Amino acid sequence: MKRIGIVDTTFARYDMAADAISEIKGSVTGIKIIRRTVPGVKDLPVACKRLLEGEDCDIAMAFGMPGKEEIDKVCAHEASQGIITAQLLTNKHILEVFVHEDEGKDEKELAWVCERRAREHAQNLLKLLFHPEKLTRDAGTGQREGFKDAGSLKKGKHS
Amino acid sequence: MKRIGIVDTTFARYDMAADAISEIKGSVTGIKIIRRTVPGVKDLPVACKRLLEGEDCDIAMAFGMPGKEEIDKVCAHEASQGIITAQLLTNKHILEVFVHEDEGKDEKELAWVCERRAREHAQNLLKLLFHPEKLTRDAGTGQREGFKDAGSLKKGKHS
Amino acid sequence: MKRIGIVDTTFARYDMAADAISEIKGSVTGIKIIRRTVPGVKDLPVACKRLLEGEDCDIAMAFGMPGKEEIDKVCAHEASQGIITAQLLTNKHILEVFVHEDEGKDEKELAWVCERRAREHAQNLLKLLFHPEKLTRDAGTGQREGFKDAGSLKKGKHS
Amino acid sequence: MKRIGIVDTTFARYDMAADAISEIKGSVTGIKIIRRTVPGVKDLPVACKRLLEGEDCDIAMAFGMPGKEEIDKVCAHEASQGIITAQLLTNKHILEVFVHEDEGKDEKELAWVCERRAREHAQNLLKLLFHPEKLTRDAGTGQREGFKDAGSLKKGKHS
Amino acid sequence: MKRIGIVDTTFARYDMAADAISEIKGSVTGIKIIRRTVPGVKDLPVACKRLLEGEDCDIAMAFGMPGKEEIDKVCAHEASQGIITAQLLTNKHILEVFVHEDEGKDEKELAWVCERRAREHAQNLLKLLFHPEKLTRDAGTGQREGFKDAGSLKKGKHS
Repeated sequence: MKRIGIVDTTFARYDMAADAISEIKGSVTGIKIIRRTVPGVKDLPVACKRLLEGEDCDIAMAFGMPGKEEIDKVCAHEASQGIITAQLLTNKHILEVFVHEDEGKDEKELAWVCERRAREHAQNLLKLLFHPEKLTRDAGTGQREGFKDAGSLKKGKHS
Repeated sequence: MKRIGIVDTTFARYDMAADAISEIKGSVTGIKIIRRTVPGVKDLPVACKRLLEGEDCDIAMAFGMPGKEEIDKVCAHEASQGIITAQLLTNKHILEVFVHEDEGKDEKELAWVCERRAREHAQNLLKLLFHPEKLTRDAGTGQREGFKDAGSLKKGKHS
Repeated sequence: MKRIGIVDTTFARYDMAADAISEIKGSVTGIKIIRRTVPGVKDLPVACKRLLEGEDCDIAMAFGMPGKEEIDKVCAHEASQGIITAQLLTNKHILEVFVHEDEGKDEKELAWVCERRAREHAQNLLKLLFHPEKLTRDAGTGQREGFKDAGSLKKGKHS
Repeated sequence: MKRIGIVDTTFARYDMAADAISEIKGSVTGIKIIRRTVPGVKDLPVACKRLLEGEDCDIAMAFGMPGKEEIDKVCAHEASQGIITAQLLTNKHILEVFVHEDEGKDEKELAWVCERRAREHAQNLLKLLFHPEKLTRDAGTGQREGFKDAGSLKKGKHS
Repeated sequence: MKRIGIVDTTFARYDMAADAISEIKGSVTGIKIIRRTVPGVKDLPVACKRLLEGEDCDIAMAFGMPGKEEIDKVCAHEASQGIITAQLLTNKHILEVFVHEDEGKDEKELAWVCERRAREHAQNLLKLLFHPEKLTRDAGTGQREGFKDAGSLKKGKHS
């Protein structure tokens, strides 16, 4: 049975983990989900690594909502570097699902993108675990999680 | 008996570690606190790692007060990266408790946020150690340590 | 038989991996190519490391197309750092083949540079694997992958 | 007998290591100092690690004087990250003693701050080695190495 | 017999490695030089590490010429971080010899600084290997590789 680690924060203003868990449970059976919550995004890397190693999870998701200030951008960058290092030290994927607080024009749009991104990345996680060939089918097609897909480039002889 | 490592700096202009220790001791019994002080924030990562490994602490807190200048921001960033790496190498949490010297409009407000942040993160540490389910109960609710909580996003169909 | 790992993303808007595979297969025989696709560039480092270690690849290519926004530049930077760390932990080369979405004046030029860069780096990979002396022959000659080569500096006594 | 590693650069325009060694030797006896010099600040991390591991030093100091240009700031940042990593890999302290070339209004002031910072950090090193409780006594008191101490925050109810 | 690793790029517009090898061979005998060439600066870290470990080199030089654009500065930064990490993982020195394409006012001056920097760093390498005491003799004297030395600070009581 595959084991999925889910880590999120009390700092975030939307419960993306709940949406992701709902999406996963609505899509597959026979998996085990282990959830942890930490204060902020900088606590995510070690929390994920503990699930991947101590709880023997096969993959993890890290949810965060960095604030609008410059200092928040720096925190998000530090967290991202840590999440990449955690993956390299475990040889397992951690899908980083961050929504920056300035991505939406208002709170409603922000909540909407949170849910969409959480659910679409939950589907990415299931593909990584069970159907990696489906990701390759979409290689280079400009997929976006949350907002509208960018699509493939229009080709042709460039002028 | 759980062992908690506390590291702070002589550079900081407020003794946050004392507030955190007071908060921890006022909340639980039967824990051991080991404190170390280093010159500046860039000395925090290895000092925490030494407590987590050499002194077998279960968790640590790293207190710092970066200055207002650009160079101070860079130092804080380097320290934060190091604190994240220290966690990944030990598989233990280090709660970073930094108050930037430009976070307050005057020294009094700065001292006030130092105490609040130190005490609230001390409570976070106790939850991580003893009641992780309490953090999950607050997942996605916009908790802030020090200033006012941001709260959850107002949801609804975005226009 | 040499084994080559190829990793790309669904975020990219052009299928550079296909061009690289076509270039490799058109140039040599008796090699094994293993391809994986991940959501975005930050997922590339661990995906490459898994191919280099778990699938025993001798070398890998990491394809990505970072977007135009500041946040995309930060993601690309994080991915690049991770790709370098993955190489240091495996002692194997990973050729990073990124085309930034703002490198072309329109979609056609962007698609054109994607194909050129993918194919030229595929040739670099073959040189690294089979003919390293050919790279040394071009040392310091201002090679560029995609756009026009910069060429060697004009020497002479500087004024 | 405690062993202290000292590393500095030929790039720096002031011999801070000499001042630090003079300060250490004037303060304690029965210690062994091992000194190495490297070209620039980016060579400091591995030089320190070699002293901590190969020469079994208990602690090290890394002296550098980054230049005024943007590129120099980046070099200093890279060196600092490396010095932090070197500490995490050895579980030993390395006190980074950098004076930026734009910290003084003229060469004389710069030389003055170099000497003060070198000597004050030499005292920090001796406290870390022999009297860690003295550092804790100064925790949160706004100590500065070189220029005037910032002091503790004035407390009170913030308005 | 000491073994020296030399790595450079096809991206660079000047063959600094050739100058460094000429300088080394003109200065000492009884050493073995092993040279590798990679596409760009981000490929340097692992190439150096492979020479230090797989080819048992005692020390390495990494030559690169980052371009003028912002993206080139980021690449150089990533490469530098990787080169520092490679040193920390091998406990051996890698002298980074980068000339930024905007360091010269024209191509002739750029070529001139390339040769000077390559040769002066080759001498630094020989000192690190055979005469480390010569570097300490120059500690804090403002040495520069390429352009004119900055010299020691003028001391005196600052006003």
